Amino acid sequence: MNRNISALKTSIIENFGTPCAVIDLDVVDRNIKRAQTLCDNAGVKNRPHIKTHKSPLLAKMQIAAGAQGITCQKLGEAEVMANNGITDIVIATNLIGAARSGRLASLQRRVPLKVCSDSLFSLAAYSDAAREAERPLDVMIECDTGQKRAGVETPREALALVQIIKNDPMLNFVGMLFYPSKDSWPETQIFLDEMVKGLTSLGYQPGIVSTGGTPNFANIGKLLGATEHRAGTCIFNDRMMIEDGFATQENCAFGVYSSVVSRGGAQRGILDAGSKTLTSDTGGLQGFGLILEHPDARIHKFAEEHGFLDLSECANKPLVGDIVRVIPNHVCVAVNMVDQLVAVRGGQIIDVIPIEARGMLV
Amino acid sequence: MNRNISALKTSIIENFGTPCAVIDLDVVDRNIKRAQTLCDNAGVKNRPHIKTHKSPLLAKMQIAAGAQGITCQKLGEAEVMANNGITDIVIATNLIGAARSGRLASLQRRVPLKVCSDSLFSLAAYSDAAREAERPLDVMIECDTGQKRAGVETPREALALVQIIKNDPMLNFVGMLFYPSKDSWPETQIFLDEMVKGLTSLGYQPGIVSTGGTPNFANIGKLLGATEHRAGTCIFNDRMMIEDGFATQENCAFGVYSSVVSRGGAQRGILDAGSKTLTSDTGGLQGFGLILEHPDARIHKFAEEHGFLDLSECANKPLVGDIVRVIPNHVCVAVNMVDQLVAVRGGQIIDVIPIEARGMLV
Repeated sequence: MNRNISALKTSIIENFGTPCAVIDLDVVDRNIKRAQTLCDNAGVKNRPHIKTHKSPLLAKMQIAAGAQGITCQKLGEAEVMANNGITDIVIATNLIGAARSGRLASLQRRVPLKVCSDSLFSLAAYSDAAREAERPLDVMIECDTGQKRAGVETPREALALVQIIKNDPMLNFVGMLFYPSKDSWPETQIFLDEMVKGLTSLGYQPGIVSTGGTPNFANIGKLLGATEHRAGTCIFNDRMMIEDGFATQENCAFGVYSSVVSRGGAQRGILDAGSKTLTSDTGGLQGFGLILEHPDARIHKFAEEHGFLDLSECANKPLVGDIVRVIPNHVCVAVNMVDQLVAVRGGQIIDVIPIEARGMLV
Repeated sequence: MNRNISALKTSIIENFGTPCAVIDLDVVDRNIKRAQTLCDNAGVKNRPHIKTHKSPLLAKMQIAAGAQGITCQKLGEAEVMANNGITDIVIATNLIGAARSGRLASLQRRVPLKVCSDSLFSLAAYSDAAREAERPLDVMIECDTGQKRAGVETPREALALVQIIKNDPMLNFVGMLFYPSKDSWPETQIFLDEMVKGLTSLGYQPGIVSTGGTPNFANIGKLLGATEHRAGTCIFNDRMMIEDGFATQENCAFGVYSSVVSRGGAQRGILDAGSKTLTSDTGGLQGFGLILEHPDARIHKFAEEHGFLDLSECANKPLVGDIVRVIPNHVCVAVNMVDQLVAVRGGQIIDVIPIEARGMLV
């Protein structure tokens, strides 16, 4: 055990073993402040997406820094946040499974939610849940302007749903949810402008006009009429955000400390972090993660508990027992693999933060 | 809510919502029996790999059906199994992070383990842990015969490690761990035969000679001298095992019930199961999972909570609100995403099984 490793790495492996998911709170602080400033400067409210961190503690740090409220992707995430006193919540998906299980009504009874719809079916489910909760639900219409994910494709369809909401005493129209791709900003403007006209003729204000995505900070302020932005990844950043140009290595708050556990061949090695730790989510990049100490060592394949290292381009090859810090391609899914994050400040371990909303299927 | 859905689907969505991970225990019973019979007929012991199910309850079903003991991939998995009374445990990885955290010594003090090594470094870590536990550790040498994962590449290297073990009073040599690829069986025989010769000259019996993998049931019995087989996936099976030819849809015990939550366009749709439920692990296949009700509907992409459906080849297109059952490409990683499995027998929900060894990083 005669490796020359840093005090922090020694402390991590002796207290927690490897692999170990760690966040640097000094970097988190700066990242939270940066996102808030970008929103403030663009004149839109900041409604961070908590899917990245899934932690009430971190959500409260975002609110304390100026965020209007939060965005959740799952009802289960909203339940955890509401149980921790957070009350201004947008749930940015069509909640069908959750509505039919009775859980939407239960939470709505306690905390008035803002939910999203792109169909008659989810509106009907929301109306039933609101009736059961004895409290009308605030509904945003999800609009697709290029991602081809959820969301209606035309203002005409969106306005037809608004008309249904108008006629339902258990539903309130409160706005629109957009998730433009980085280059579909102009189409989004056209969609929004048509919507505003249609809404005016129905007697509505546009209400919340929400855009999303950390890469879209590059476009923030460009959508005339936008009122809020919901970004997730920017609290931690990852290899995708480095590739995107939004972040540098120094902006990456989350890393997995991993041991080199095997060097079976001269040009190859194995990390103890595989798909069960870093996930198989490539985010469209080559390889799985960036090894900060050996950026030329390529993680070219995963088994569940093995990261396969190609060391053929690596001048200074890691040895068995070395501990490395890996920035994942996609941090949101990596955080979802762990029950807790070890938190570091000033290079010292200061806390263990439970990921209370981890793994919420519903 | 006027969909015509089965009683089981209605029961799942009303009790748990969607997505929901469900196992059919009738199929599990048959799968456990099949694996045991395959091992029995080949004259090797069955040591199932619990990484697939991560549940002490299911491990005990395997032992009750005749398994010799279990295989774990992580010390944390072994801790959970030992806490539930299972004592014959092989841990099939180089435990370096776990050894250095003190947890290996703690468990070894309670339950004598069989651990694996392919380097001087892990042997030194094991020796330290055994000394701390005041109980020698049983060590198997991990040998690579083609996967290029962990494991020494030559009998010479393996025998050098055996020599180290021989000289260390805290370590016992107890066997060899192979994980041949499906077509590297002949190389494995050559490796094993050379090892046996070398071991004899060192005064050792070969001990446990372990092979692994559900696809390798096709080769079981072919390695002369093999004493045990460790297979994981066969308890549940998945789309990879269907493609491999080992399983049919009827052998797949695990499925994710998922709602169609959006149909934004005529040729596309969205499931509420994305990479956070089914994972981005393709297992080398096209698409992410098999939709049993619509096998011609292709899940072509995932976001965390969205499964993107390409319905262009789908004659009978699913509607918003439909509930479908999805067989994942790779079941082991899908099980690791959930805290519990809903268990069905005879088409009725009868239990909820906690995945107690889920998410063990160390």
